[in-house]
Amino acid sequence: MTNVFNPPARTLMGPGPSDVNPRILSALARPTIGHLDPQFVAMMDEVKSMLQYAFQTKNALTLPVSAPGSAGMEACFVNLLEPGDKAIVCQNGVFGGRMKENVERCGATAILVQDDWGKPVDPAKLAQALADNPDAKVVAFVHAETSTGVRSDAATLCKLAAENNCLSIVDAVTSVGGIEVAIDAWGADAVYSGTQKCLSCVPGISPVSFSERAIAAIKNRTTKVQSWFLDMELVMGYWGQNTQRAYHHTAPVNTLYALHESLLILEQEGLEAAWARHDLNHKALAAGLEAMGLSFVVDEEYRLPQLNVVTIPDGIDEAAIRQSLLQDYNLEIGAGLGPLAGKVWRIGLMGYACNQTNVLFCLASLEQVLREQGADIVAGSGQSAARAYYQSQQ
Amino acid sequence: MTNVFNPPARTLMGPGPSDVNPRILSALARPTIGHLDPQFVAMMDEVKSMLQYAFQTKNALTLPVSAPGSAGMEACFVNLLEPGDKAIVCQNGVFGGRMKENVERCGATAILVQDDWGKPVDPAKLAQALADNPDAKVVAFVHAETSTGVRSDAATLCKLAAENNCLSIVDAVTSVGGIEVAIDAWGADAVYSGTQKCLSCVPGISPVSFSERAIAAIKNRTTKVQSWFLDMELVMGYWGQNTQRAYHHTAPVNTLYALHESLLILEQEGLEAAWARHDLNHKALAAGLEAMGLSFVVDEEYRLPQLNVVTIPDGIDEAAIRQSLLQDYNLEIGAGLGPLAGKVWRIGLMGYACNQTNVLFCLASLEQVLREQGADIVAGSGQSAARAYYQSQQ
Repeated sequence: MTNVFNPPARTLMGPGPSDVNPRILSALARPTIGHLDPQFVAMMDEVKSMLQYAFQTKNALTLPVSAPGSAGMEACFVNLLEPGDKAIVCQNGVFGGRMKENVERCGATAILVQDDWGKPVDPAKLAQALADNPDAKVVAFVHAETSTGVRSDAATLCKLAAENNCLSIVDAVTSVGGIEVAIDAWGADAVYSGTQKCLSCVPGISPVSFSERAIAAIKNRTTKVQSWFLDMELVMGYWGQNTQRAYHHTAPVNTLYALHESLLILEQEGLEAAWARHDLNHKALAAGLEAMGLSFVVDEEYRLPQLNVVTIPDGIDEAAIRQSLLQDYNLEIGAGLGPLAGKVWRIGLMGYACNQTNVLFCLASLEQVLREQGADIVAGSGQSAARAYYQSQQ
Repeated sequence: MTNVFNPPARTLMGPGPSDVNPRILSALARPTIGHLDPQFVAMMDEVKSMLQYAFQTKNALTLPVSAPGSAGMEACFVNLLEPGDKAIVCQNGVFGGRMKENVERCGATAILVQDDWGKPVDPAKLAQALADNPDAKVVAFVHAETSTGVRSDAATLCKLAAENNCLSIVDAVTSVGGIEVAIDAWGADAVYSGTQKCLSCVPGISPVSFSERAIAAIKNRTTKVQSWFLDMELVMGYWGQNTQRAYHHTAPVNTLYALHESLLILEQEGLEAAWARHDLNHKALAAGLEAMGLSFVVDEEYRLPQLNVVTIPDGIDEAAIRQSLLQDYNLEIGAGLGPLAGKVWRIGLMGYACNQTNVLFCLASLEQVLREQGADIVAGSGQSAARAYYQSQQ
C-alpha cells in the first residue's frame, strides 16, 4: 500500500514554482463546483478582468489557458502561424529554442536572431532580420528569460515588429507580477505567462492575451488551428462574453479559484507596489551576494529582480551546495540550464517568496554551506550588506 | 475591488466534475514544492504505479498529462497519427465528433462509423469499416460516452482493431474508477481519462497510458509530433525511469498531490469494491427514477452506472427544474448535449458522490420540483423504490 504524501515545507527560491501564499492554498481547497455553474462563470469574468489589470491591457481575449506555460506558448504559435509562414525568433536562452520548436511544428519557418545567454535581445539584430525577411509574419521573444535572468526591451521589440507589419509573441511567464508588463503600451499581439512565478499561484495554467490584430489574424486563417484544445476561437466560445457558453473542455476549477485569489492579492497590493517590492529585495540580495564574492551573469541594467543568476565560485561542488540547502535548510535554489549548467545558480525572489526574511535566510544558509566547502567568505558579510541596503531604503 | 470567491457547497451529480473527496481537497492544499524536488519525483513514481493499478496495465508509459481530458485525447491522436494516415472513428455521441476533429487536425483522414446517440458502438459496423479500409492505422472509440450514458464493448472493439493491424485509442474519461477498465486484457494501445469523474479528483489533468505497440509507432514516426507540449517522447523524458529527468514543463504540483490522494483512496477501497458501489447506487437510483415515471435513454445492458441519462417528461420545463435544484437544493444535475439537448437529464453518480445519501437526496429533490411543476408522481415513490432496492441487497 502507498502512503499519504506529505510534502516537506520548503522555501522555494528557484526559478519557479515559487512559494505559494497560504491564502491561495486555502482558496485552492474550497469545494469544487461545476464548470458551468453560474457562480463559477461569474468568477471566470472576474479572473479575466483582474488578468487585464495584471497585463495592463484592454484586450477582450485575456484568459488563462487550462495548462502550463509551455501550452500557453504553444497556444500563441499554433493560433497565429499557418504552414508556410515565417517567424523571426529571438533566442537568448532556453525558451527561445523552445519557440523555434513551436514554429517548426506549425509547418512554418523560423529565422533565428541569436544573442549570447545572459544578454538581452539586441534590437539592432532584430531590425536587420526584419529587413532581410520582409515576408515574416511573426516576431517572438522572451521578455524575462528564466534560464539566464535577463530582461529584454519588450516595448522596443514589439514596436519594431509592428512597424514591419509583424505580429509579436511575447513570453511573459516570469515577468508578470514581478516587473512591468504593459501589453497595450507595448502594442504586443500575443502574450503568454505562468502562474507559478511572481503570481505565487500553483503551477498548471497559463494566462494569455491576444490583441485585436491577433484575433483578426486568427479569423483570417485559411487552415484550422492544428490543436483542437488550444484553438482560441473555440476557447473564446467557452470564456466569452456570451451568457450561453459553448462547452469546450472542463476548466481546472480549483486551480482557477487559486488564480482568482492570487490576482486579488496582486490587486490589493497594487502592481507598482509589487514591482517596488521585487526591486527592493533584489537589490538587498544582490548586495549580499556580491559582498560574499558572487558575481551576476547579467549586467545590472538588464537584471530581473525576480531571478538572480550568479556564477559559482571556482572549486565549489555546486550540486552538493544545492543538496545541502534542500536537505538541511529546506531551501530550494535553481541550477543552471543548457550552456550555463554547472556554472550558475538561479536564485528566485518571486511573488510571495520575495521578502526580507527569505533574502536574509538565503544569504545565511548559502554562506554557511559555502564556508563548509572552504569558500573564503567573511562570516556575516552577505547579511550585513543586505541589512545595510534595507536600512538605507527605510 | 474584487471580493474573495467563496463557492457554494454543491452536491455535484452532473456529468462531472463530481464531488471531490475532502481528503483530496486537503491534499491539494499542501505546500507546493519544486517539480524537480526528489520528494516530488518519488511521488510521481507512486502516481504512475497507482495509475497502472487503476487502468489494470503494466504499460510503462502510464502518466497524467498536465492538462484536461480533451488534451489527453489530443495527446493520443497527435502522437499516433501522421499526415496522410487514416483513422476509423466510432461516433455515438459528442466525444466521437471531437475525435474526428482531432484526426483531421493531424492532417489524417477520418472514416466515421456511426451509431445512434444512446446506443453502444456496433462491432459489426466497425468490422465492416476495417474490411473496407485495410490501410487504416488507428481505431478510436469512447468506452463510456458522457453525452449519452452508454458503455461500449471495449474488449471486442480493441480486439477487432488489433486483428486488423490497427492501433486502438480509447476514451476512458468517465469510466476509470466507476466500471472496469482493463487496458492489458483489452489490448488497448492508447487510453486517456479524466480525474474529475469517478476518481473524484479536481479537474485539470488527464491520465493516459500507451502500450509498447503504441510506443513503437511513436518511435517510428517520420514527422515530429505537431504538439511540442503533448509530444510523448519529450513527456517520457520528464516522467521516465531515469533519475536525471529532462525538464519539459512545470508539472501541476498541487493537482498531482490531489491525484495521488485520489488514487490512494481507490487503492484502499479496491477497484472491484468501487465498481460494486457504483453498481449498487446506480440500481437504487434507477429503481427510484423509474418508479417516478422517468425512463432511461440507454438499454439496461449498456447503461453506465455512473451516468444516468433519463428522458424529461412531457410538459416539463427542464431548465427550470435544473435551476430550482441548483438554487434551492445546491444540487447540480446535467443537461443534454447535441441532439439530446432539452430532451434528457444526465444524473451522475461518480466516485465520492456515488453514495446512498446522494441517491435519496436527488430522488427527494427531483420529485418535489417535478411535483411543483404538476408532474403526476406519487409522493415518496422514488425514494421508496430506492430504499427497497438497498434493503434487498443487504
